Parts: sequence; structure tokens; C-alpha cells
Amino acid sequence: MTEDEKVSQIGEPALRDAYARAGVDIAEGNAAVARYRDLTSEWRHPGQVGAIGGFSGLFRLPGDDDRLLVGSTDGVGTKILIAAAIGRYGSVGADLVNHCINDILVVMAKPLFFLDYLAVGKLDAEVAGEIVAGVQRACRASDCALLGGETAEMPGLYAPGHFDLAGTIVGIVDADDVPDPATVKPGDAIVGLPAVGLHTNGYSLARTLIPQDEWLAPFSAGGDGVSYADALLAEHPSYAAQVRAIAAAVTVKSMAHVTGGGLLENVPRTLPEDCKAIFEQSRWTVPPIAAELVRRGELSVAERYRTLNMGVGYTLVVPLAEASRAVKAAPGAAIVGWVEARDGDEPQVLVHPARR
Amino acid sequence: MTEDEKVSQIGEPALRDAYARAGVDIAEGNAAVARYRDLTSEWRHPGQVGAIGGFSGLFRLPGDDDRLLVGSTDGVGTKILIAAAIGRYGSVGADLVNHCINDILVVMAKPLFFLDYLAVGKLDAEVAGEIVAGVQRACRASDCALLGGETAEMPGLYAPGHFDLAGTIVGIVDADDVPDPATVKPGDAIVGLPAVGLHTNGYSLARTLIPQDEWLAPFSAGGDGVSYADALLAEHPSYAAQVRAIAAAVTVKSMAHVTGGGLLENVPRTLPEDCKAIFEQSRWTVPPIAAELVRRGELSVAERYRTLNMGVGYTLVVPLAEASRAVKAAPGAAIVGWVEARDGDEPQVLVHPARR
Repeated sequence: MTEDEKVSQIGEPALRDAYARAGVDIAEGNAAVARYRDLTSEWRHPGQVGAIGGFSGLFRLPGDDDRLLVGSTDGVGTKILIAAAIGRYGSVGADLVNHCINDILVVMAKPLFFLDYLAVGKLDAEVAGEIVAGVQRACRASDCALLGGETAEMPGLYAPGHFDLAGTIVGIVDADDVPDPATVKPGDAIVGLPAVGLHTNGYSLARTLIPQDEWLAPFSAGGDGVSYADALLAEHPSYAAQVRAIAAAVTVKSMAHVTGGGLLENVPRTLPEDCKAIFEQSRWTVPPIAAELVRRGELSVAERYRTLNMGVGYTLVVPLAEASRAVKAAPGAAIVGWVEARDGDEPQVLVHPARR
Repeated sequence: MTEDEKVSQIGEPALRDAYARAGVDIAEGNAAVARYRDLTSEWRHPGQVGAIGGFSGLFRLPGDDDRLLVGSTDGVGTKILIAAAIGRYGSVGADLVNHCINDILVVMAKPLFFLDYLAVGKLDAEVAGEIVAGVQRACRASDCALLGGETAEMPGLYAPGHFDLAGTIVGIVDADDVPDPATVKPGDAIVGLPAVGLHTNGYSLARTLIPQDEWLAPFSAGGDGVSYADALLAEHPSYAAQVRAIAAAVTVKSMAHVTGGGLLENVPRTLPEDCKAIFEQSRWTVPPIAAELVRRGELSVAERYRTLNMGVGYTLVVPLAEASRAVKAAPGAAIVGWVEARDGDEPQVLVHPARR
């Protein structure tokens, strides 16, 4: 591929293809977000800090001038349909917890507690126990309390064997420690942390491109003895240890958790309007399962970087002069791109695909 | 009915009938709770206060000796299937928020913020906007920030037109203000606050007993121009104003939010082992929609008081000498029962049904 195949961020009809194929309607999603914004403009609680639409919400701790509470709610998406189909429930809880931990890590918040919501069509105590054990294991690994949760049995809403899993995390941060994207400048470096698979996004597409009857078959590109299910269910990691190590070593100006929307939609939230991010895909490794989806779906460059994380799970903007120190501080970290000045209506994220 | 038809709390086969008829498996639910308890006994975060299984979880605010954070997650259950079927989405958001507010009110916590989780099969921005507007309206009415949320479109998991709605509330309370059920003594009075309908429980049963083709028909017992849908979708109220007024006037020893499990399962959590609660149903009014379900389903006394709130939405245990002051402090409040000494394996809640 040539450098001319750079990817723009928003509005290209091509970008909608991958979601549309998977039955997810981006236009309707944008319309819903617009409605939520209208609601927010009507009324916001005075304790809220920052705008809606980030990875988490910040709230002034009453009676405390220094600290903020941080909250975030998320689900694991249709990854659970794969877990349910093959009866492997141990990792979806950790997917969810780690996803939430990373969402509040973007503002440098330390997790305090987590609450889960498990909804099923027909309750199976063994399955529910396995799912919640995964939630607890991940909470414990991150010194986060599993404070409570709700298990709802709703015949009629979910088919037997189907379930949904969502969760909410609450963390705390000193206001002075919250990175400020306004400090990002052209010339800064972008450090990336490696993804271990699809994490919790792109599963509607993945289930379309890799049909269920293949899930237990060997996935040769994934390594010895790895099935498609193994690769698809690979656990969403927490980036807290790596990020804290980097933050202890260098100035972190802004961060993004690369979730739904990929680099193209998540990184712009971490940049000022007059900056753009340039990624050079030859600088990191695309996970085999993502490469497989690209191949099977003949995904355009735009589709790839909007639907999948493509191997970069988390990004940190740091001063160029500190970038090599940042990379040394955390195993697996790499310089994956840089920040440049942006003119008027230029796209805010460009990805140079690797030449093949 | 005679006084002999007193209702015991747990384990009677009859109690399982109403849920089983609605496709909800109580035994499996108890098995799941047992598994969660095992997990909790393996590991609990040192910041957690009190046992799991209450209405909410309490967590020590780091660096603050006096205050606790309180978190609770809940859903609105299959009430949403009625809302979805008739396309009336405005009140389910408030049902959810007020349910959560009452859950943390039991420990006297003041709401700080709320996050919602909306999952749909096929996203409709107008519907999503209407639902979240209801969430926001209820948050605003209770001075609670709507800090964020997640809207997930999951084709394959939910049928088109179906959706699920859950939410998490976080509040704060001075540790000294948390009521202590251990102070409850025989002779105390139980003050009840009136329910306005089914609130958010019993809907799987209600949908079985009142079939969908009747929902838009007039419900004559409900009053002029009231349909079954109007009665079924009546909004779950917040009890915060009434409870705060009562707490300002008298000593509140313990409280219960009467949700799934009714008086029979919720009130025991607010009593010491050596106390039982006696309710006298002639002291309050059963909402017409609950009476209708009792009539149609020929619900036993046990079924009624375990599946439905039967008209008491919230209970407060107060000293007998202060009970009339408590009732005067909050409109609608009534003395609905009293606390007596309990022997060994006696049921912890008895309800004397009204004679008819």
C-alpha cells in the first residue's frame, strides 16, 4: 500500500461498511449521541467536571478540594455470544473489569470499586458463578473491590443460553494528576501499548466473518494448538501497571483507550483541535486474529482502523525527548506515531499502513 | 382470610409458585447467590464495609475517616418489555434512577452520580433519547449527576425493538448516619411509605397474568381513563424526601426498600436474628393493579408478599414512642406493623392479610 491510502477520521461512506455489514448502524449511533448532547446542554450537575463523551465521567468529591471521583460504565459487547456458544465463561468478567479499568486510567484514576450487571434469559447458577468469578479475579488483581452487582433473570428478553454482562467502575484521582490534552503539541510522540487480540470491540463483525462452526477449529496463524475461539476470547488486559510505570518516568500529556472506533475515533479525543496524529503501522505488530479479519473481510484501511484496535490497545502522548525513556519504562511499549500540526478540516488521525 | 394464614418467609414450596409460573427460577437464584457468597468469602477488599447482599455496597473513602461511598447497580426488569411493546419510553429511566436512589437511601446515602447502561438489538436514536431523557429527568429531580453511560447495539443478542436498561448509582454518607439494624428491639414500630404500583418488580408475573392484548384496554379499578398500561408503567417513586423528613424528626433504626422478594425477603435484612416483623395489611391500601394480579392469579398470601410490594414501597423501623411523630413528618406514611421477639426458627416476617 502507498502513503496515498491514508485514512481520514470521520464521515467517509467507506467507514460505515464494516459496521453496516455486522448490523451496527453508525449513523443512528451518531444521532443518539447528538440527542444525549442536547440533554446534557439542558442540564448538568455542578459537580461534574469536563464534557460527556470521554472515556469516563469526573465528579468533584464533596468537601474535598483536591480529589475527583471518576465513573465509567461499559459492556463486553457481543464477545459474550462467542463465550456463551462454546460454554467458556471464565474470561468475559475480566474483559469487562479490565476494559473499565483502562477507561478510567485515561484520566490516571486508581480503581476503588466495581459493580457488575448480569442479565440472563434462564439462570444457570454454575455459569453465573463462573462469570462473576472472572469479575472477582480481575478486580482482585487490580486491588479493586467487587462492591456488588445485580443478576437479573428475564425470560422473554433474552433467549435461553444468552446473557448480557455490563459493569461500572468508580475510581479516584488527584485533580492535579489528570492529563491535559490541551498541552499536546506538534512534535510530541505517541507511545502505544500492545493489544492481545480484539479486546472487547469488533465482535459483531468478527462473528460475521468467522462463522460459529469454525470457532473450535485450529487457527494456524494464532500459534500451536490455538483455536479461533482462543484467539477471539483472548483476555482484554489492564494497562494500569504499564501506564503507571511510564507516568513515573516521563510527562504524560494525554492518553486514549483504543476501544470501539479504533485509533480513528479514540485518539482525537486526546488531541487539541489544531493537532493531528500520524500512526505508522510498521512500528507495531497486528495481532493474527485482526489480520485474519482484515483478510477475510477485505477490510479497507478505514474499516480496519475504525472497527478494530489493530494491535494498539492504548496510546500515550509524551514529549518527543522523553519518548525513549517512556518505552523503556514499560515492557511492550513502542513509539507508534507522532503529533503534527493540523489545518482546518484535515482529518485528525492518519494511519500509514505497513507496506506488504 | 383468617389470622391462621400467616406467611412465613423462606423455603415454603408455595412461595416458588408465582415465580415459577412466570419462568423465574428461585432455587437457581439462591444457588447463584450461594456461589457469589463463596467468592466473597475467598476475597474481599479491605475497603469494603458490611456484607454483600444488602441493598448497596459500602466502601471507605480513602483518606477520609468519616465518610463512606455507597454503590448500587440495578435494572428495571421486564417492565421494559411493556414499555417497548406500547412504545412508551418516558418513564423507565425514572423507574431505574429512583429504584437506585431508594437502594442507597436505606443506608441514608445522598446520591452523587448515576451511570446508565442501555443495550438494544437495533438502535433507534429517538427511542434511546427518550429513555435517557427519563434518566436525566429523575437524576435532576434528585440533584444527582448523570455522569455517563453506555449505549450498546448488539444485533443477535436482543431482538429488534427489545432493549435492556440498567444503571449504577454512587452516593456518600457519614458513617455515623448509617442506621444500625442491631439497635432494633421488640416493641419498635414499622412505618411504611406507600407504593404507587408494582414499582420495578413482579413484571414477569404481571405479563403472564395480564396478556399484551389487554394492555391498552381500560383498567376500571385504576380510575377514570386509566389503562392497564398506565397502571403497569406507574413510575417508581423516590422516597428520599419522605425519609429525610422522618429522619430529621425521629430516630430511624433500620430501613428496607421493598423490591424483588417483597416484604417477606427485604424486611428481614433490617432486623436482628432475634426479632420478627408483624405486618397488618388492614393498615394500608393495596394498589388496584396489585389487587388485580392477586385476583387473576389467585395468588396465595405467600406469593403476594414475596412477588409484589402489595402497596408498601419502603419501611422504616422507629421507636414506638416516636412512631406518630414519624408518620406526621411525611405525607402518606403510616404505621404498618411492629417488631416482636422471635424464637429460634420462627419466620422473620408475618403478614396478617386484611379480612374481606
